[in-house]
Amino acid sequence: MAAVDDSQLAQRRGPQRMTDALPEYNIVDMRDRTPEDLSPSELEQLQDVEVAFILYMPDWLLAACPKLKWIHSFMTGHDHIPLPQLKERNIRLTNGAGTAAIEIAEFVIARVLEHWKFFPQIAALQVEHKWRPVFGRALSDAHIVLVGYGPINQEVARLLAPFNMRVTAVRRSATTPSLGADAVVAFSDLNAAMHDADIVVAAVPSNDDTTGMFNAEKFAAMQQGCLFINVGRGTAVVEADLIASLESGHLGGAAVDVASEEPLPPDNALWDSPVRISAHCSATLPNTMRRVHELFFRNIAKFATGERFENEVDL
Amino acid sequence: MAAVDDSQLAQRRGPQRMTDALPEYNIVDMRDRTPEDLSPSELEQLQDVEVAFILYMPDWLLAACPKLKWIHSFMTGHDHIPLPQLKERNIRLTNGAGTAAIEIAEFVIARVLEHWKFFPQIAALQVEHKWRPVFGRALSDAHIVLVGYGPINQEVARLLAPFNMRVTAVRRSATTPSLGADAVVAFSDLNAAMHDADIVVAAVPSNDDTTGMFNAEKFAAMQQGCLFINVGRGTAVVEADLIASLESGHLGGAAVDVASEEPLPPDNALWDSPVRISAHCSATLPNTMRRVHELFFRNIAKFATGERFENEVDL
Repeated sequence: MAAVDDSQLAQRRGPQRMTDALPEYNIVDMRDRTPEDLSPSELEQLQDVEVAFILYMPDWLLAACPKLKWIHSFMTGHDHIPLPQLKERNIRLTNGAGTAAIEIAEFVIARVLEHWKFFPQIAALQVEHKWRPVFGRALSDAHIVLVGYGPINQEVARLLAPFNMRVTAVRRSATTPSLGADAVVAFSDLNAAMHDADIVVAAVPSNDDTTGMFNAEKFAAMQQGCLFINVGRGTAVVEADLIASLESGHLGGAAVDVASEEPLPPDNALWDSPVRISAHCSATLPNTMRRVHELFFRNIAKFATGERFENEVDL
Repeated sequence: MAAVDDSQLAQRRGPQRMTDALPEYNIVDMRDRTPEDLSPSELEQLQDVEVAFILYMPDWLLAACPKLKWIHSFMTGHDHIPLPQLKERNIRLTNGAGTAAIEIAEFVIARVLEHWKFFPQIAALQVEHKWRPVFGRALSDAHIVLVGYGPINQEVARLLAPFNMRVTAVRRSATTPSLGADAVVAFSDLNAAMHDADIVVAAVPSNDDTTGMFNAEKFAAMQQGCLFINVGRGTAVVEADLIASLESGHLGGAAVDVASEEPLPPDNALWDSPVRISAHCSATLPNTMRRVHELFFRNIAKFATGERFENEVDL
């Protein structure tokens, strides 16, 4: 049996690991490579590949692997994967939902604390050698609205529990049980939920409903001074509207780990705006990769027996 | 009955509040004033003052108030108060221990997250318009050593509970129950506790044992790359040794909210060092002041009946 490992990030654990863990598999290492780089024997192996372990979906994958039966994409989102083609070829898909959630949630809380303890202002005073107290804000005062209540925002709520904030979960259906939230509302009630929000955290998947979801109207619905954080998909935000809201003084701050175009071009307006930008790096490699591997290895066992996978995506 | 209110920070709640809450007291407002500024009638009132509510202990207080019976200092530390004189005159002392602990603990966690999510480096990349992932570190890997396990570090442990770190409390006696800590060790075992510490948080009172406690030998005992945070008293740290350890590459980072000299003079070496400095502002005013007032008002009731106070300091 053959498998493809195209996960660039998996390098951090060394290519050896996958080979060791799956001795019965013939692993074709595709990291940082394309089929054009491969030797004739490697190309031949691709003909037999049944399993692909990927970071992003490479263009060549479906055509080069006619016997492909299962793709494990270790990202949570699968907007880069052509689902209709998978369905047509009866290829199963699993994703990495939840594998990076804890660390992304830590990153969200880091952004909240950085903003509310005024670290940028404190750093500027240090440059000026000025001993001037800049008292921060307490989290226990605050109302946090978590838009999209999947693994990431559920972790945000779990980690914030001892901070005694008021947590509103916003999800497709307000009837879904939402552990850790003081209130649950449906997407249709988002504006009302945000009117007294001190923080809004977006972690929604990319789809027709969420594209451009955070636009001028949504930012206007947030409370004056609100902090907006996006750790889901960049396409959920109309970035020009976000910048305008910050520059008008309505929003109090914003941090995004994702952009509508990645990598963000050097001349994009976000760079010089008040939005704090990170390069899709809120996950944390060793922990995330460990969980990605563990999930994949658990599913490998199920692949052999034909069981339903963990994190299987309905096509 | 007369009382003195010398708490500059109490202004944030307005001088009216104390007067409203204590109608039977004749409040002499000493904020930003000295006895030299006072009218003859105000000076006469000082003669009758029995209760003083203070931020720092003003020099003039003991001499100007011969009938003084109780001082409430809303700082936690009382190194600015001449305890022997209080004892001699049978003046009782209460302090604000715990009133700011939650927010100071939030500040500690903010400094940990800022450092481990590499926010300074990420901010520098934004200035350069560079989309380069800078993956942070997960807290769940880490060992945090909390030196001094009073209200502040107990709150640090409480807030960090869901982050699944390993918590070692270091206190005068290792036999004192230490909720929230995985291990408790005595000060004498501090070096052993720090050998694999990823973070060391100092929140010790100022006394003969703690002055200069964090010196070159202690920094050398910490693990390479360790993050050191001080939110207790600046005198606990030999600042030149801290800077030297950072510059040698042994310590990975440091943040202090307190300095050996406050306000820190503009030519102090800390300013241009890698130490991240804030101006004794890790507390958060509205919440802290609310708790300070609540504690003081609870004790006022006990003053009337002669009961033992909350937060009474043994002289």
